[in-house]
Amino acid sequence: MKIYLAGPDVFLPDAAAIGRRKVEICARHGLTGLYPLDSEVDRSAGDVSLNVFKGCEVMMDAADAVIANLTPFRGPGADPGTAYELGYMAARGKFCLGYCNDPSLYVDRVRRFTVVRSQDGRLIDADGLTVEDFGLADNLMMVHALDLHGCALVTPTKAAADIWRDFTAFEACVRLAAERIVSH
Amino acid sequence: MKIYLAGPDVFLPDAAAIGRRKVEICARHGLTGLYPLDSEVDRSAGDVSLNVFKGCEVMMDAADAVIANLTPFRGPGADPGTAYELGYMAARGKFCLGYCNDPSLYVDRVRRFTVVRSQDGRLIDADGLTVEDFGLADNLMMVHALDLHGCALVTPTKAAADIWRDFTAFEACVRLAAERIVSH
Repeated sequence: MKIYLAGPDVFLPDAAAIGRRKVEICARHGLTGLYPLDSEVDRSAGDVSLNVFKGCEVMMDAADAVIANLTPFRGPGADPGTAYELGYMAARGKFCLGYCNDPSLYVDRVRRFTVVRSQDGRLIDADGLTVEDFGLADNLMMVHALDLHGCALVTPTKAAADIWRDFTAFEACVRLAAERIVSH
Repeated sequence: MKIYLAGPDVFLPDAAAIGRRKVEICARHGLTGLYPLDSEVDRSAGDVSLNVFKGCEVMMDAADAVIANLTPFRGPGADPGTAYELGYMAARGKFCLGYCNDPSLYVDRVRRFTVVRSQDGRLIDADGLTVEDFGLADNLMMVHALDLHGCALVTPTKAAADIWRDFTAFEACVRLAAERIVSH
């Protein structure tokens, strides 16, 4: 089983090492991890960002499953690029897995970034926009996409000491993928 | 042509009125807008958020196209829920359109939220994560998804006075959808 390794990990200073580690963990469970940075992209010529996009799309199409790192990125929720990829994989009928290394609820995470108050029976942020309060870890689209197109979001019981470099929840997803092969 | 109207508009205090306005604009161009809030979701019983998810999925599957509101939401980039939906629609081969009512570049928007500095030849944020600097309006996945699966992101030349209630860029997307019908 080939697994597309989606996540903002590619933006880390040690992005390549993180990718190698994830691919190794997959291999230990008999699976092939496809890490976006390993895509054969020409970064020297042409429209580099378009080439990166095409490389990711080829990798996603080649994969049987996705493990999306939905750890909050530059705000209270998941990286939109990763969310895009999860949606793409769900629509293609791929097996969808995801994890979030911050176990807090979305509404509590929004509180860290802005004033949240109650008005007219709903929670609103400083701009007056409703804060979803379903007791979920992130936007319901990603959370329930995992419920219906794969396995429930994996979160640690307490926040990882280094949320970008703790692979416990990631490995739990890899195990779920490996179990699926055995059961099919 | 049925168009799924994706966006964080559903979180606005006047979400229902915004939806009616968008549906009206679609109708004026001979198109049918499908607004997530108009989905027949049972909000009184069962797992409400799961019902909302299923309602959105049914609407997306029924639509021929999507217009995604990628205006920055609770951070420098698009709403992850909307990004998920754009990925879903792209993968299903639907015609993908999107707009962003903030015309600034992603890298400049990140600067509004965090310190961005240069290190080892790349731009990094306060957490040390690389800030994509391709001169794009958002994460390359959404921007190039529109380029390759529909039409280029529509942005105003200057920021809309009310970024949540200016429909100029939205209507430009509706026009692009209407033209597509004529040309096919």
